[in-house]
Amino acid sequence: MAKRKDKIKLGAFLLFTGHHVAAWRHPNASVGTEFDNYVELAKLAEAAKFDTIFLADGVAARIKDVEAASRKAHSGVYPFEPITLLSALSSVTRNIGLIATASTSYSDPYNLARQFGSLDRLSGGRAGWNLVTSADPDAAFNFGHETQILHSDRYERAEEFADVVLGLWDSWEDDAFLRDRASGRYFDPAKLHRLNHSGRHFKVRGPLNIPRSPQGRPVVVQAGASEPGKELAARTAEAIFAAQITLEEATGFYADVKGRLTKYGRSHDDLKILPGIFPVVARTRSEAEEKFEALQELIQPEVGLNLISQLSGVDLRDYPLDGPVPENPPATNAGKSRQALVLDLARRENLTIRQLYLRIAGARGHWQVVGTPDDIADQLEERFENYGADGFNIMSPIMPGGLSDFIELVVPELRRRGLFRHEYEGTTLRENLGLKHPENSRATGKSGAVAAE
Amino acid sequence: MAKRKDKIKLGAFLLFTGHHVAAWRHPNASVGTEFDNYVELAKLAEAAKFDTIFLADGVAARIKDVEAASRKAHSGVYPFEPITLLSALSSVTRNIGLIATASTSYSDPYNLARQFGSLDRLSGGRAGWNLVTSADPDAAFNFGHETQILHSDRYERAEEFADVVLGLWDSWEDDAFLRDRASGRYFDPAKLHRLNHSGRHFKVRGPLNIPRSPQGRPVVVQAGASEPGKELAARTAEAIFAAQITLEEATGFYADVKGRLTKYGRSHDDLKILPGIFPVVARTRSEAEEKFEALQELIQPEVGLNLISQLSGVDLRDYPLDGPVPENPPATNAGKSRQALVLDLARRENLTIRQLYLRIAGARGHWQVVGTPDDIADQLEERFENYGADGFNIMSPIMPGGLSDFIELVVPELRRRGLFRHEYEGTTLRENLGLKHPENSRATGKSGAVAAE
Repeated sequence: MAKRKDKIKLGAFLLFTGHHVAAWRHPNASVGTEFDNYVELAKLAEAAKFDTIFLADGVAARIKDVEAASRKAHSGVYPFEPITLLSALSSVTRNIGLIATASTSYSDPYNLARQFGSLDRLSGGRAGWNLVTSADPDAAFNFGHETQILHSDRYERAEEFADVVLGLWDSWEDDAFLRDRASGRYFDPAKLHRLNHSGRHFKVRGPLNIPRSPQGRPVVVQAGASEPGKELAARTAEAIFAAQITLEEATGFYADVKGRLTKYGRSHDDLKILPGIFPVVARTRSEAEEKFEALQELIQPEVGLNLISQLSGVDLRDYPLDGPVPENPPATNAGKSRQALVLDLARRENLTIRQLYLRIAGARGHWQVVGTPDDIADQLEERFENYGADGFNIMSPIMPGGLSDFIELVVPELRRRGLFRHEYEGTTLRENLGLKHPENSRATGKSGAVAAE
Repeated sequence: MAKRKDKIKLGAFLLFTGHHVAAWRHPNASVGTEFDNYVELAKLAEAAKFDTIFLADGVAARIKDVEAASRKAHSGVYPFEPITLLSALSSVTRNIGLIATASTSYSDPYNLARQFGSLDRLSGGRAGWNLVTSADPDAAFNFGHETQILHSDRYERAEEFADVVLGLWDSWEDDAFLRDRASGRYFDPAKLHRLNHSGRHFKVRGPLNIPRSPQGRPVVVQAGASEPGKELAARTAEAIFAAQITLEEATGFYADVKGRLTKYGRSHDDLKILPGIFPVVARTRSEAEEKFEALQELIQPEVGLNLISQLSGVDLRDYPLDGPVPENPPATNAGKSRQALVLDLARRENLTIRQLYLRIAGARGHWQVVGTPDDIADQLEERFENYGADGFNIMSPIMPGGLSDFIELVVPELRRRGLFRHEYEGTTLRENLGLKHPENSRATGKSGAVAAE
């Protein structure tokens, strides 16, 4: 196979204290809930020339099992809301992209388009919006609903939401604001465009009351891997944070999504696929394994049992931890979509209850690689060269140490292999990701005449 | 009258390019649409020990008369959205308060509570929320409505919105997060409180998924002067940006609103009243008048006629600018609430059409003082000592020069008179404004037992 000509893109998925479920208990992990902790991480990633920092989000605390929740750092309670946090980070960074997650189910498109447009302008063209539909059933109860919104309804709304937001971002042409003191003309009315959207979920007249940004508009990112999620991504997204585990799954997903682009008049390079990876790296394999084990030992049984319950829908709290997984355990009210998968794993490998939760709890179901810098670089190179990924979203087990380990040990190896940049290519997120500057869909090329309606 | 023991509070009302309607055309005004312009203004105000910077907002461009709109800087199109802009400024300032305007009619209380809570945490306890109900009729069309929302409906929603937001800000007690590595307890379940709000407009379970801030919660600010506006302020606000013009109006408003506090169990000091002032200052009166005239001369007739139409509901575009205001001019579709006021002014003083718009256009209806540092200080002192104000929101005619003039010329005079601080009293906005740390309304004083429901 010919070597790819482009390079690996890297994102730092920032999660306070780290991605391992027990990271917060580790003596080397920062509590991570102060703004200065995020400044440190963002500057680390920027100094290493990462493309982006990325923030997940949810709009509900996950406290149904309050005993288990109170033993975790990540119960859906975030130290900061992502749009405000990235805005604050925009003024202390210069080059790195700033991607925040925000929900189409529980936001308003005018406000969201405006805030992301504003972040994009504040940062000189470095913003990205990770579009999610919020699968968390608890979120609905914070927004007036009696029950969770159905998956199909969420995606129908998301499709229209994306259209409204993209339309609003084209309210003003790039050169609409003249600010001509002599003639007294502040903007050119011909370069202003109302949206006049009227659909099933939204009625939005526009225009958006904020000018365009240096990169035209924020980069649209997505994560959903369902059929409607892939279709929405192929139509509107410019990056995907994928979650496939094996190489085969990754290349399959990659080919599937990229194959959908042409029917929307888009090309292979218009969408970057960036799987998440949970890397535990050290100079030797045994050292890396020790690092991982030190984290695993900090997982509390309440937390492990809660995760089994969440994933498999069975309640194992009344059974001995170091005994076998019982044949017909009692069911909980939680979802059962992965029940067979989890219980089959326990039976196939003859795991105790504790061994079962240790297997699924640490990286919380993400692609996990424990090894030397060469091991990690091999894995990334293989996935990149085989078109399973255009880059990776690094989910460091503990912060800030996990991120600085990756930067000190793995990034130089990727550079040695010619797989990662030495300097930023441009000043905007689009330029660094290798995405085109988006033309304004409403631009007419005219000026002077009134085009406000 | 005994001298007041407290000191004047000062806010810098930041508006890009300046508050005069034609400021953007003045050669000394900054275009003001870059982030660096706001950094400069915020640092200027902070170096002078101002209490706050303040940002107005609206959620619609005002482009109905696109010809007039295209000749103004302030047509409702802002360079940045306020919450994101203040978040970005939070990381390059240390002491100054950060007050953003946000609408109860076109926002969601969970998202708003979370973003302001986040800004409050990012800034170390310096955030304030200016609660508005958005009178602008164009805003409704960007949020699914067919017509403007009635004033009474907006205030009914605002009352409930404020209750939800204040309740959500008490979701976690100040010391709820233990983060105790040894025991494995991340938070104390007894210090977590769900809201379980169910009202006419909102159904919100809670808790908010963000911890409390160093000042407990953001400072609540209001501007409305209507009867329901004053009542809502007396019940919930901690500062009011008032807009009264004369001393008599100001002292009347002050006594009226402060008089309403006791019925809500609040005291005189729990609410600060801060009128806006549009100061044009120079070392001599004639120099100040020249400064003002130089701005007035830049007002374009289209802009002046549009302002007359907006305030009075009459269309004077077909009459000679330097001729008299006609007896029965044609009406427009705009509001007519101040028709008599504006036309009476023209007749009483025998003004031409041009003279009429010059009288009302410059400071856009705000309290305007043109004079020497002593003149301005005299006016502020009189209003403060007579309990017409607890401080002032400075609306500089042009930026940054108008603000730096006020700081260089007026602030030292206020200090000389013992009316303004030399150093910040504290690190939070509440401490500087002289407001109490709010107790958590849900706190039980217990710990250990589950209080999540």
